[in-house]
Amino acid sequence: MIKNLLSAGDLDRADAIQVLDTAEELLGIASRPIKKLPTLRGRTVVNLFFEDSTRTRISFEAAAKRLSADVINFSAKGSSVSKGESLKDTALTLQAMGADAVIIRHPSSGAPHRLAEARWTQGAVINAGDGTHEHPTQALLDAFTMRRHLAADGDGSLKGKNVTIVGDVLHSRVVRSNVLLLDTLGANVTIVAPPTLLPVGVDRWPVTTSYDLDASLEGADAVMMLRVQAERMNASYFPSAREYSRRYGLDTARMNRLPDHAIVMHPGPMNRGMEITADVADHDRSVIVEQVTNGVAVRMAVLYLLLGGAADGSSDELSSDKERA
Amino acid sequence: MIKNLLSAGDLDRADAIQVLDTAEELLGIASRPIKKLPTLRGRTVVNLFFEDSTRTRISFEAAAKRLSADVINFSAKGSSVSKGESLKDTALTLQAMGADAVIIRHPSSGAPHRLAEARWTQGAVINAGDGTHEHPTQALLDAFTMRRHLAADGDGSLKGKNVTIVGDVLHSRVVRSNVLLLDTLGANVTIVAPPTLLPVGVDRWPVTTSYDLDASLEGADAVMMLRVQAERMNASYFPSAREYSRRYGLDTARMNRLPDHAIVMHPGPMNRGMEITADVADHDRSVIVEQVTNGVAVRMAVLYLLLGGAADGSSDELSSDKERA
Amino acid sequence: MIKNLLSAGDLDRADAIQVLDTAEELLGIASRPIKKLPTLRGRTVVNLFFEDSTRTRISFEAAAKRLSADVINFSAKGSSVSKGESLKDTALTLQAMGADAVIIRHPSSGAPHRLAEARWTQGAVINAGDGTHEHPTQALLDAFTMRRHLAADGDGSLKGKNVTIVGDVLHSRVVRSNVLLLDTLGANVTIVAPPTLLPVGVDRWPVTTSYDLDASLEGADAVMMLRVQAERMNASYFPSAREYSRRYGLDTARMNRLPDHAIVMHPGPMNRGMEITADVADHDRSVIVEQVTNGVAVRMAVLYLLLGGAADGSSDELSSDKERA
Repeated sequence: MIKNLLSAGDLDRADAIQVLDTAEELLGIASRPIKKLPTLRGRTVVNLFFEDSTRTRISFEAAAKRLSADVINFSAKGSSVSKGESLKDTALTLQAMGADAVIIRHPSSGAPHRLAEARWTQGAVINAGDGTHEHPTQALLDAFTMRRHLAADGDGSLKGKNVTIVGDVLHSRVVRSNVLLLDTLGANVTIVAPPTLLPVGVDRWPVTTSYDLDASLEGADAVMMLRVQAERMNASYFPSAREYSRRYGLDTARMNRLPDHAIVMHPGPMNRGMEITADVADHDRSVIVEQVTNGVAVRMAVLYLLLGGAADGSSDELSSDKERA
Repeated sequence: MIKNLLSAGDLDRADAIQVLDTAEELLGIASRPIKKLPTLRGRTVVNLFFEDSTRTRISFEAAAKRLSADVINFSAKGSSVSKGESLKDTALTLQAMGADAVIIRHPSSGAPHRLAEARWTQGAVINAGDGTHEHPTQALLDAFTMRRHLAADGDGSLKGKNVTIVGDVLHSRVVRSNVLLLDTLGANVTIVAPPTLLPVGVDRWPVTTSYDLDASLEGADAVMMLRVQAERMNASYFPSAREYSRRYGLDTARMNRLPDHAIVMHPGPMNRGMEITADVADHDRSVIVEQVTNGVAVRMAVLYLLLGGAADGSSDELSSDKERA
Repeated sequence: MIKNLLSAGDLDRADAIQVLDTAEELLGIASRPIKKLPTLRGRTVVNLFFEDSTRTRISFEAAAKRLSADVINFSAKGSSVSKGESLKDTALTLQAMGADAVIIRHPSSGAPHRLAEARWTQGAVINAGDGTHEHPTQALLDAFTMRRHLAADGDGSLKGKNVTIVGDVLHSRVVRSNVLLLDTLGANVTIVAPPTLLPVGVDRWPVTTSYDLDASLEGADAVMMLRVQAERMNASYFPSAREYSRRYGLDTARMNRLPDHAIVMHPGPMNRGMEITADVADHDRSVIVEQVTNGVAVRMAVLYLLLGGAADGSSDELSSDKERA
């Protein structure tokens, strides 16, 4: 197993499947009377957040606490460490305090890598979103959600599944991590976006690209709608919000053209009425709320494997923890 | 027992007395070497605060931690969920993360009700203050405090006790919850305020109203002074702060006209020298500090009954928890 | 043992050595698989921070959690208690909530003393930095770090050790606490600063003062560089940052003139290139990262002794806790 989780690309197929399998076991904890395992008792997990992201922070916090870790929230905003140049000293400080894992959210792409490189030898670094770069645990929870719905009895991968990702690809860290992980797991990815919201270099990604959502729905096993940032809604990208919704929003008419088994996903928080209509968001095929639940299980799995993990790659320790709990 | 605590009016007399009796048992925990019960181990309690209220937040946090729950603080200020329209999605997200209770403080009256209605089926919603509407746990801790001093050997209610509430009734959520609960518990409530600080419709409340504090002290078993918001001190309400203190402030002279057994209360934080003099605040008859202590016990009781509660209405589980602790 | 820790001067030599000896035992916890003792289970520790200090806050938080205490963070900034006049009511409130210790950081010198005097009878008050006045746990961690390197087999004191403290003495709470504690422990202290950064009355401190860093390096067992606040860099203190570095910064050339066994210290966060060069900061003789680790152990020791402490001054309870853990 890897030591840090900086990029979804760090995981080979076996690693990725191990995380997903572990999350599957841990998901069961949530339905027990005491939703807690002793696995990480005495371990310290630091949430080092250089930008606000309440959802991601509390998902990691809940995950760590269910494994009995001590959680310390470190909102770097406005603190002496909020400047990039002192990231190295921040890393050394947190390590010196005995942090076993640092979960970092940072507005600059690459910050988690710099943290991991700063002589950080004992603790694990987990990327909780860096700039427009990556958000690997989001990709893992997305893959986990797809696997539960689309590949119940397969080899644990997503081989041959068709995933359509729609929207503001240019600014999305979610899509970068998803593309890497879905490729590793064998899925076929189609990216649909207006030309102005596709990044330079997308032609080298292992995906099919399209500007036409209607042409990309048939045969999709999962459709993932990306959040549109209102502040990016301006003339340089496309004419108007209404125009965006009309061409790239998912409404009931479009959803009805998907195969019956297809699921609708969104990383949240949604702009209801913009990239997704309220009807679709609340539809039976929408698994958006389930993604949140799965996020806690996947983050428990990542913390479990990086910090307390079974060195031989098996999950035996997990099973015995569950008995002891 | 009820499922959520949105309004003090949700509690019938039996419910209210059950909360107070449970708080009485839990108050004893505070004097033990290990002030902790295992009751809510593995449960997740979220403090969802849309406005700052450090006192209320830490009182709930201390209560939840003494029951061994995991507490996640979610200050919605400035986060993506700070806009009213996404309260439903916030509710779904917190439920999906496995929150067993959400304690909500919100500047808009009715927000906790909207949260509770949003398909929130598994977790409990507790109102920690919504606009100028209600603050039910404050009313419970006030009733608990009165009961300890005024009705030691009664039937657990406050039947026939005379409670005088003084001050800015118009803007007070404390008074609304108190009026509902005190009525349920059989107390006689007199409200004293300048005419400009009485809300429209107060004539339909089950209270006596008066503009004259001096005339309302005789026979009072408890006097509750409300906090005056300095920013509301302007010509539309009454002439000046000095005038307010002179007519509606509690000083030693007024306190001496109360019956010997009467107690002085204040929800805090006090404006010493405004609605209450420092002498009265620190007097033996003042139970203001004790109210804070009782607040933790009452909030433990509410969490206990809503989350871990004895389904048959007895407190047997609590007793055995105490033995196990 | 003392009841509160307000000033490094509160500790006599026996007290100080007891804290350091206890920290020595607790440092070992960090290397165990479960870095946690049950000593303070059920105790509530409140971090009452009236100004931001993430490093200090998380060091205390980690320390309290490793002793199994419940920690409540209370950032007073912007709350109703942020005004000095209500510190008494804040104290009463926290005590009433059952806080066993309040760790206070405040911009005003003397605030922790006012808190401790406010009828605060059951909880301990720990000064985590008050204005430019004191920061006693910083002095304890500094002494602890020196003792580990300089006096391995002595009587536990720092008798006869030569400590040179360099920089902005005028605004430093670190230096005031260090001077008091180092004097108690028998060390010889030399303070080096530009004349404009020495406080009035420094001639009555038990130290030697100098304006000349180069003349003060020979014979030093430890050199402690103080952080320079960029905002204090103006004409009234000295000409320029470059001039400051040239005259009062520690670079490799100066470090090489220290005795071979001498250590370099800094309370952090560092201004690399200002009061210390990056080379020196990262040098083998620099114990700056180790100071952070020691800070957690020393704060565990302070909490342990003030809250759970062995009444007879021995550490027997600690030993048995470790066995039980």
